Amino acid sequence: MDIYTRKINYYDTDKMSVVHHSNYIRYMEEARIHLMDEWGIGLEEIEKLGLVIPVLSVTSNYIKPARFGEDIEVRTKLTGYNGVKFSFEYEMYNPATGELLNTGNSSHAIIRDDMTPINIKRKFPDLYKKFMEISEEEMEK
Amino acid sequence: MDIYTRKINYYDTDKMSVVHHSNYIRYMEEARIHLMDEWGIGLEEIEKLGLVIPVLSVTSNYIKPARFGEDIEVRTKLTGYNGVKFSFEYEMYNPATGELLNTGNSSHAIIRDDMTPINIKRKFPDLYKKFMEISEEEMEK
Amino acid sequence: MDIYTRKINYYDTDKMSVVHHSNYIRYMEEARIHLMDEWGIGLEEIEKLGLVIPVLSVTSNYIKPARFGEDIEVRTKLTGYNGVKFSFEYEMYNPATGELLNTGNSSHAIIRDDMTPINIKRKFPDLYKKFMEISEEEMEK
Amino acid sequence: MDIYTRKINYYDTDKMSVVHHSNYIRYMEEARIHLMDEWGIGLEEIEKLGLVIPVLSVTSNYIKPARFGEDIEVRTKLTGYNGVKFSFEYEMYNPATGELLNTGNSSHAIIRDDMTPINIKRKFPDLYKKFMEISEEEMEK
Repeated sequence: MDIYTRKINYYDTDKMSVVHHSNYIRYMEEARIHLMDEWGIGLEEIEKLGLVIPVLSVTSNYIKPARFGEDIEVRTKLTGYNGVKFSFEYEMYNPATGELLNTGNSSHAIIRDDMTPINIKRKFPDLYKKFMEISEEEMEK
Repeated sequence: MDIYTRKINYYDTDKMSVVHHSNYIRYMEEARIHLMDEWGIGLEEIEKLGLVIPVLSVTSNYIKPARFGEDIEVRTKLTGYNGVKFSFEYEMYNPATGELLNTGNSSHAIIRDDMTPINIKRKFPDLYKKFMEISEEEMEK
Repeated sequence: MDIYTRKINYYDTDKMSVVHHSNYIRYMEEARIHLMDEWGIGLEEIEKLGLVIPVLSVTSNYIKPARFGEDIEVRTKLTGYNGVKFSFEYEMYNPATGELLNTGNSSHAIIRDDMTPINIKRKFPDLYKKFMEISEEEMEK
Repeated sequence: MDIYTRKINYYDTDKMSVVHHSNYIRYMEEARIHLMDEWGIGLEEIEKLGLVIPVLSVTSNYIKPARFGEDIEVRTKLTGYNGVKFSFEYEMYNPATGELLNTGNSSHAIIRDDMTPINIKRKFPDLYKKFMEISEEEMEK
């Protein structure tokens, strides 16, 4: 599990005076990229190989609203990797109060940047091995 | 079911050259507001009553990417209303090709704009009745 | 001059209950793309030639706020083209009240999509001629 | 002068593979709020007094593009305060290379949150005094 904390931006809010619901999807992305950086495999390095990791599905459950002036803490966990797809789980907290604000998950494919499929195991065996190792370590926790 | 069509904005895209996945959540919101306008109960009128309709949960499934230069058509259906919560289903298409791009759903509560619960049936009986009628009509389709 | 009208989205607002100031910059982009479509030279066609038209500078003056529930009308005028750079002027109105909400301008370069300069006159003489004709017509108005 | 550094988000980019120009306006806002936090007068505290600080004008000059995978450093300076209006100047750098990416400025009014004018000097003399002191200190630098 990785912990990523960031400030709520003024422009993240809407006229309900809380963070607009679409921005939690963006916070998930930030947290996922932070997690990959922690793995030592940054998304920008993966993209330099001609690969992209688009989102296949996303779910977000809004429990309590986040507000400007607060931080938000995203706890991210890899929940699956099978050589083709990744899945992640997210929990978001107000770190000042400990309140759970949001839960969600996302699934992703790793494909070529022209949006065609690729066999990572065959074409990028080192990357495949690294993802498999990370995935096994994360599952054990 | 309501059909809402809009152009893809340049700023909706990301460096994968497709619409960023968070923006489909925003297209859902646009389509939902369009549907409510079609009902004759605009969200701005509801908000003038001191009410808001925040999102409780959202799901989005990314089937094919939308791109700049295309339109996107969102078909929105009310799938439930019980006096407290609304639920909606969405299908998004490329209207030029007929391809299905995205499916999703969202659930919502109608509450006071200070984020406290309210009994719509008792406090706004006319609004409650209107929503119930709409909901019954929509379910029948 | 081109007139482009669009609805204010809920997600365009911030906690001041008005459109966030960064979104007027996005409305300018929408209006500029609309104007180019009116010219019969869509930005997507230009990009298919391996060209992009990034922004060099932008100015925005906030006179009155736009709000959710309203439309916004953007009047866009090409004010200059010299083979390398474009400049545009914008006025935004509330079409229901006629009130002027915002004025702004932007300047742009037309370059290769690898961000290197290109001599449009030599490499794309037809495009150059078309832009020159449009520019002369617009200036005369 | 205040220095504020942040990562470029994936969702900040557009199909030109660089940060969308509207997002520099958002980075300015982040940097301005960071500067006010450094002053010890957070925007959220000001808003709790029933005041808001909307943008009157903004200018942004795009010198070199920022890209995903990089940080961006915003240097912000208060350039004026007269009891009613604030003005700020911004310079944005790639901190890894020292390259100047963007320059800009913004002006702001401090008003009531119902968007009506207020005499800060009379109604909030302590806040007025604090802003004047900060302004004098900043000007001297």
